[in-house]
Amino acid sequence: MKDDKESVFEPSRRKILIGTGALAAGVALSQLGGLVKKAEATGGKTEKWPWPYEKLDPAKTAEICYNEWYRVFCGAAVINSVVGQLREKVGEPYTSFPADAFLFLEGGQVGWGTICGSPAGANIVANLIIGPRTAGAHEGHAISADIMQWYSETALPTFTPQNPKLTAKLPTTVSESPLCHISVGKWMKEANQPLKSAERKDRCARVAASTAYRLVELLNDWHDGKYESTATFSSASENGITGQFNCMECHGDDVPEAPQPKA
Amino acid sequence: MKDDKESVFEPSRRKILIGTGALAAGVALSQLGGLVKKAEATGGKTEKWPWPYEKLDPAKTAEICYNEWYRVFCGAAVINSVVGQLREKVGEPYTSFPADAFLFLEGGQVGWGTICGSPAGANIVANLIIGPRTAGAHEGHAISADIMQWYSETALPTFTPQNPKLTAKLPTTVSESPLCHISVGKWMKEANQPLKSAERKDRCARVAASTAYRLVELLNDWHDGKYESTATFSSASENGITGQFNCMECHGDDVPEAPQPKA
Repeated sequence: MKDDKESVFEPSRRKILIGTGALAAGVALSQLGGLVKKAEATGGKTEKWPWPYEKLDPAKTAEICYNEWYRVFCGAAVINSVVGQLREKVGEPYTSFPADAFLFLEGGQVGWGTICGSPAGANIVANLIIGPRTAGAHEGHAISADIMQWYSETALPTFTPQNPKLTAKLPTTVSESPLCHISVGKWMKEANQPLKSAERKDRCARVAASTAYRLVELLNDWHDGKYESTATFSSASENGITGQFNCMECHGDDVPEAPQPKA
Repeated sequence: MKDDKESVFEPSRRKILIGTGALAAGVALSQLGGLVKKAEATGGKTEKWPWPYEKLDPAKTAEICYNEWYRVFCGAAVINSVVGQLREKVGEPYTSFPADAFLFLEGGQVGWGTICGSPAGANIVANLIIGPRTAGAHEGHAISADIMQWYSETALPTFTPQNPKLTAKLPTTVSESPLCHISVGKWMKEANQPLKSAERKDRCARVAASTAYRLVELLNDWHDGKYESTATFSSASENGITGQFNCMECHGDDVPEAPQPKA
C-alpha cells in the first residue's frame, strides 16, 4: 500500500518542477539549475511521505483523546492523541508538528458549526502520516473518506472511557452528516441538553475518542498492508457537486439539479 | 497584541502541567520531576507562539495562491502561499510544516462539501502563526472568525490574477456560508457551469487567492499591532448551538429551538 507512492510518479522531481512554477514565478526556464535548488531550499523538509508510523493501541489512544478534549477540544484532542504518542515512539517529524495550534477546530471551526473537529482532526492525522495524492499516496484521501462516512453513519459515541467525568448514561445518535451543527444538534435534541451542559461536553469528548479509536484501527491496517477503503459515496460522481448524502435534510423534496457538462 | 500571550498566564509551565495529565495518565504526582521532563520531551518543539512573522504583500500572496491551486487545490494553496514565502523569509518553523499534506481539504474535505478549503486553510495559517487560546493568544481565533464571516458575506472572487488561465469574465456570488457545497453550488447556479468545467475550477482558484489576500491583510495588521476583530456573529451566544447565520436556508420557517439551560 505504502509503496503506491512510487508507482504513480517520481514525486520529488515532478513536485519540484510543478511547485516551482508558482513560487518562483518570473524566473526564466534557462535558469533551471538554480531554480531547482531554490525549490529544494523552500520546500518543507517534512514533506517526504509516508512519515514513519508505529502501530498504536486504539483503546489507549481513545482514552488519551478523551482526556485531551478537556484541554484542547475535539480537533486538537484527536490530533494530539496520535501525534503525542508518536512523538514518544518515533520522534521527528511528529515533534515538529504544532498539534495544539488546531484547537480552533472546536465547534466546527471557531463555533461556526462546519465540519466536526473530530473527523477534521482525523483527516489531518491520516494525511500528515500518509501524505497527499501529489506524493503518490492515495490512502490518506481514502481513509479521510472512510472517516467521513463512518462518522455520518455510526451511532456515536461508541467509546466509553475508563474514568468518565460523568457517570450518567449518555444517548447515542446517528448524525448522517460530518457537520458539527447537525451532529451536535441531533444529539442535543435526543438528550434534551443545552450546548453548555456537562452532558453535551462529555458526549463530544467521547465522540472525539471514538473517532481517534477508528482512525488508529485504519492506520494500523494501513501499516500492516491490510487497509482497504470502505467508503462507498462520492457526491461529485453521484450528484455533480461536492456534498453529503443527506440532500433532503436541507433541500426537502426540492433538491436542485447541478448544471450538467455540455454535450 | 502579540504580547497578550504573556498577560493571560505563563504558557509553558501551565501547558506542561495540563498537557501531561492526559499523556502520562497514571503517573503519580510524587514523580512530578520526571513527569515534567517527560512532557518537555513529548511536547511539540514548534509549540511556542507566536511564530516569527514578516509582513507579506497581499497581491503577491494571492498570485502565488492562484497558481498553487492548480497544483494542490484550495486549502493547501492558501497554506502554501503564506508558508512558502515565510520559509524563504524566516525559515523554521515554517520549513518543518508539511503544507502539502493539506491537499485533502479540497472540495470541502475529500469532496464532502463541508468547510471550503480556502477558509479552512486560512484558519490553519492564522492559528499556526498566532497560536491557540491555551497559549494565551486570542487573535488566531478572532482572525478565523473574521475570515468565516468575510467569506460568507463577500461577493467572491474579489481577486483577478495577472495571468489568468481563463480570460472569460466570471460571475461573483455571495455564499452566506463558509461551506463548499453552498459556495460552489450558488456559483454553479449563477454561472450555469458544471463542477468539472474550467470556469468552476478557475473560480475556485480565484476564491482561494481572494482568501489568501484577505488573510495576509489581517496578519499584517496583527503584526503591526493594528488588528481589531470585525466578526459580529456568535451562533453559540445567539442561537445556543454552533452554526452559521443562514438558519432558514436549510430549516425554512421551521427553525428548531435549541434546548435551554435549566433555570
